[in-house]
Amino acid sequence: MLSLQGIFPPLPTPFDTRENLATEKLKDNIKKLSAYELAGFLVLGSNGELVNLTDEEKEKVFKEAREAIPKDKTMLAGTGCQSTRQTIHLTKKAASSGADAVLVLNPSYYKGLMSREALKIHYFAVADASPVPVIVYNMPANTGLDMDAESITAISAHENIIGLKDSGGNLAKMGEIRESVSPDFQVLAGSAGFLLPALTVGAIGGILALANIAPVQCLQVYQSFLKGHMQEAREQQLKIIALNNAVTRKWGVPALKEAMDQLGLFGGPSRKPLLPVDEQTRKQLQQLLEINNIL
Amino acid sequence: MLSLQGIFPPLPTPFDTRENLATEKLKDNIKKLSAYELAGFLVLGSNGELVNLTDEEKEKVFKEAREAIPKDKTMLAGTGCQSTRQTIHLTKKAASSGADAVLVLNPSYYKGLMSREALKIHYFAVADASPVPVIVYNMPANTGLDMDAESITAISAHENIIGLKDSGGNLAKMGEIRESVSPDFQVLAGSAGFLLPALTVGAIGGILALANIAPVQCLQVYQSFLKGHMQEAREQQLKIIALNNAVTRKWGVPALKEAMDQLGLFGGPSRKPLLPVDEQTRKQLQQLLEINNIL
Amino acid sequence: MLSLQGIFPPLPTPFDTRENLATEKLKDNIKKLSAYELAGFLVLGSNGELVNLTDEEKEKVFKEAREAIPKDKTMLAGTGCQSTRQTIHLTKKAASSGADAVLVLNPSYYKGLMSREALKIHYFAVADASPVPVIVYNMPANTGLDMDAESITAISAHENIIGLKDSGGNLAKMGEIRESVSPDFQVLAGSAGFLLPALTVGAIGGILALANIAPVQCLQVYQSFLKGHMQEAREQQLKIIALNNAVTRKWGVPALKEAMDQLGLFGGPSRKPLLPVDEQTRKQLQQLLEINNIL
Amino acid sequence: MLSLQGIFPPLPTPFDTRENLATEKLKDNIKKLSAYELAGFLVLGSNGELVNLTDEEKEKVFKEAREAIPKDKTMLAGTGCQSTRQTIHLTKKAASSGADAVLVLNPSYYKGLMSREALKIHYFAVADASPVPVIVYNMPANTGLDMDAESITAISAHENIIGLKDSGGNLAKMGEIRESVSPDFQVLAGSAGFLLPALTVGAIGGILALANIAPVQCLQVYQSFLKGHMQEAREQQLKIIALNNAVTRKWGVPALKEAMDQLGLFGGPSRKPLLPVDEQTRKQLQQLLEINNIL
Repeated sequence: MLSLQGIFPPLPTPFDTRENLATEKLKDNIKKLSAYELAGFLVLGSNGELVNLTDEEKEKVFKEAREAIPKDKTMLAGTGCQSTRQTIHLTKKAASSGADAVLVLNPSYYKGLMSREALKIHYFAVADASPVPVIVYNMPANTGLDMDAESITAISAHENIIGLKDSGGNLAKMGEIRESVSPDFQVLAGSAGFLLPALTVGAIGGILALANIAPVQCLQVYQSFLKGHMQEAREQQLKIIALNNAVTRKWGVPALKEAMDQLGLFGGPSRKPLLPVDEQTRKQLQQLLEINNIL
Repeated sequence: MLSLQGIFPPLPTPFDTRENLATEKLKDNIKKLSAYELAGFLVLGSNGELVNLTDEEKEKVFKEAREAIPKDKTMLAGTGCQSTRQTIHLTKKAASSGADAVLVLNPSYYKGLMSREALKIHYFAVADASPVPVIVYNMPANTGLDMDAESITAISAHENIIGLKDSGGNLAKMGEIRESVSPDFQVLAGSAGFLLPALTVGAIGGILALANIAPVQCLQVYQSFLKGHMQEAREQQLKIIALNNAVTRKWGVPALKEAMDQLGLFGGPSRKPLLPVDEQTRKQLQQLLEINNIL
Repeated sequence: MLSLQGIFPPLPTPFDTRENLATEKLKDNIKKLSAYELAGFLVLGSNGELVNLTDEEKEKVFKEAREAIPKDKTMLAGTGCQSTRQTIHLTKKAASSGADAVLVLNPSYYKGLMSREALKIHYFAVADASPVPVIVYNMPANTGLDMDAESITAISAHENIIGLKDSGGNLAKMGEIRESVSPDFQVLAGSAGFLLPALTVGAIGGILALANIAPVQCLQVYQSFLKGHMQEAREQQLKIIALNNAVTRKWGVPALKEAMDQLGLFGGPSRKPLLPVDEQTRKQLQQLLEINNIL
Repeated sequence: MLSLQGIFPPLPTPFDTRENLATEKLKDNIKKLSAYELAGFLVLGSNGELVNLTDEEKEKVFKEAREAIPKDKTMLAGTGCQSTRQTIHLTKKAASSGADAVLVLNPSYYKGLMSREALKIHYFAVADASPVPVIVYNMPANTGLDMDAESITAISAHENIIGLKDSGGNLAKMGEIRESVSPDFQVLAGSAGFLLPALTVGAIGGILALANIAPVQCLQVYQSFLKGHMQEAREQQLKIIALNNAVTRKWGVPALKEAMDQLGLFGGPSRKPLLPVDEQTRKQLQQLLEINNIL
């Protein structure tokens, strides 16, 4: 079974100044980040602006990312669409492009109709059709829909569904899920803001926006925990929260890209309606990078 | 300037049993509904499962719908995507397919970043690029993002943005918008559940799911109001609310399609993850149609 | 049966500069407001800071308010507490103080446990014990709990429960309630922001914070509607929304009190944690009063 | 400075079958629970139905609880009311009754007006007036208001405000607070569902409903963590989550009381509108107690 242990950065998708895809820049970023002990990469998660790309562009990104991602690093591909049908279509494209597993965000547009039954049928259909293992993705801040522990437990019963990325940050729920699913179902933290707490209730790693700009710091929390160095782990965890907030819930993808630019990776613009950060935010980001000894 | 006065059904998009597009059925529905005094049709709104179609399919639906929609009826096309770029692309396709105006749902995936500024820049860019007038679409139950009166007022300042469909049902806000925008900005109710209240604060019509199955009843509320027959208008308004709830917030698009099937229009299946209604719901729908003298 | 037709101001509770009760000022306000064709007064609603008073103070306010309220004006008393027991206790005090009916806000602290059943048992127990008729009060912006149409309909079945004040502003729900309850159950708008829309779906009046400072303007909307002068009603309705927002959801009770001070009524301070409005808000209030020809 | 290290049960308040206070039963419960290595007790938290008691009753409970709580155990008293004035009044009563510190829930009725400034002024006024240290209490599930990290950090600056109980379960926020407040500000988990995760980001204990019925299990998590036995801590943490959910967010205070009855403590009825659990819930509680080897 595919192991999801470790830290994965969800790669932003680079665009040029005209908002056209700049996949060469993506490859450059992957090469630079491959120097760290990261378990692999997520291509086209929320930070990858999956909702801002056409189907054609998504396939192109999958293919070019795979070319750059070393064979020994796992490639996860975000393929969740609103319809089951389209999700299956994109999942197959990701698999044929070389993704090792797909990360499937739940449909959420028709929130009121996304019953446990509807969600289960959706995920089972995707998992039945997928050539590669499926990871469930819960991201309530973006979808406005928080899948509950019962839903996720029911979905986890499918043999081709191997794990969960939960970005909600409800640790009691994560623990409840961990306790109710099969032992080999793999739970990943969806944000560096609660990486250590997640590890303590059984998560085996994380898909962390912060790992794009602070891979060492994320890995330190993870490794300190594995070694049982709890005090170090706590200090490392607490230190990264402010920077993590800055590039996630506070200023989002444009801030993550700005930080990457400051660090010598390629960030570049997001596609509108995402706006570039303003000058003040740029400076605050710089300070946060300095505080964390990254810049 | 294009008038939006009157009642528009947001057409569901027909699929066959394999979930393939069945545009002939759409044309049949349009023909049957064209017998009523409806002002026109919305193609690919929330009830049209716009999020469940590929770009190619969307263009096909626009084109075939226009073929069936009589010249004297207005065709509105739903073209809101998450990115400004894609929204513009689809807007141009809709215009070249013959749509008289486009209805643009706000992007909402990156909720935390959708500031008034970001929304205004988005809508202005779409309106600048659109060959046809733009209508703003606020649908918080689906997007999880409720654009406020200030945002909408700011957006309304663009000369190619001619109106608003508000499905939120906050009538104080609708009144506030009505009072603060230019007199020729046109406000439409987004649900038959509050059609009469909306008319009393200055809405000039509605885009109403219910108008697919109860066009006469929707038109009665509208016409009674225009004639100043307030008591009749009230009785007609109150009578349709339960049925309207059933085919909107309660059971949604699959219930609307089921009701259409019961009435001799083509409803058919929705694309998954939307599930068909169960047997009990089917019967309750039948009763509600009978109560309203439709069946 | 007690009629609730017409417009009721929910009186703010005056305090002196040390935050002690200043009931003489309350009496003065009542005398001045009694000059208008108001149906009566609500004592200790949300605007009366019911949650900021001790039980003893509540009784004192009920008694002194009744002394000042003319016999031909209806006195409504807010008596909703978190426990059924305390609500009954306060309801009896209000009745013995001369209140004509009590307005009972739903308990909401244990939100997750306030099932339809729990709410119904609560309201039925209060109505059984109350010497005067009971009016249900739904105020989701403050309680964080929005009682649904089914709950309110079930509660309305008790013969001593005669009406509803709904401040939620969901007009489709208000219509649904109007259609499902007994014809003699009386529905009141809970905010001037949607008075006219509410009247069109069967409300028979309103309990309106704005009626403390703009009784004429509120009465105009009401009377224009009764006379069938819909265009005048609309213009009057739209004109008051901005001022109504200012003294309700935007700046709340302290702004209402400030406006009363500006108008020669007694406003005075609120009890902390409610803070006085700042200088800028004071000026904006003044402008809004001038725009509405009140100042 | 008063230490808050360790585990505190928030005691339910016993009532007899007529819903009258049964403080003797409270004393019995305290005596039985004092056999465990608990740091102390919280009297009149959310589980103590503080909102369901009169002021007079609250004082009585404080006094009688103190008589039963051993001198070497800390007594925390819940004194948060909606007004600053009343909160100060009750805080003084708690202090004179022998409480070692007070736990002050934020006011929340006027949600829209509870700015950072308003909250800070409120807490500072209470802390200025309080003879004993003040602990901030954030409980968004009940109040509908989630104080953010910035608010809590600002409030923590007062020298008489020594800690925080956070029941929200947002661990990234807890970490952010831990990092930004003074090192001697003490953070407590507000639910056993995330005790271990909270400890890992710097909490020094918890006020846990579950500690009323599973003190040993709660203490095990705490002590395993202190000893650095992370795997045991995890297993113990995961095992208690389902039972904790049952007596907190799922079925609440009545379920906690029912479980206490099953265990030979006194639970008894809650005050209405809280209803007793039904027969099925009773059985599920029994099973959960058995699974945890408590019954």
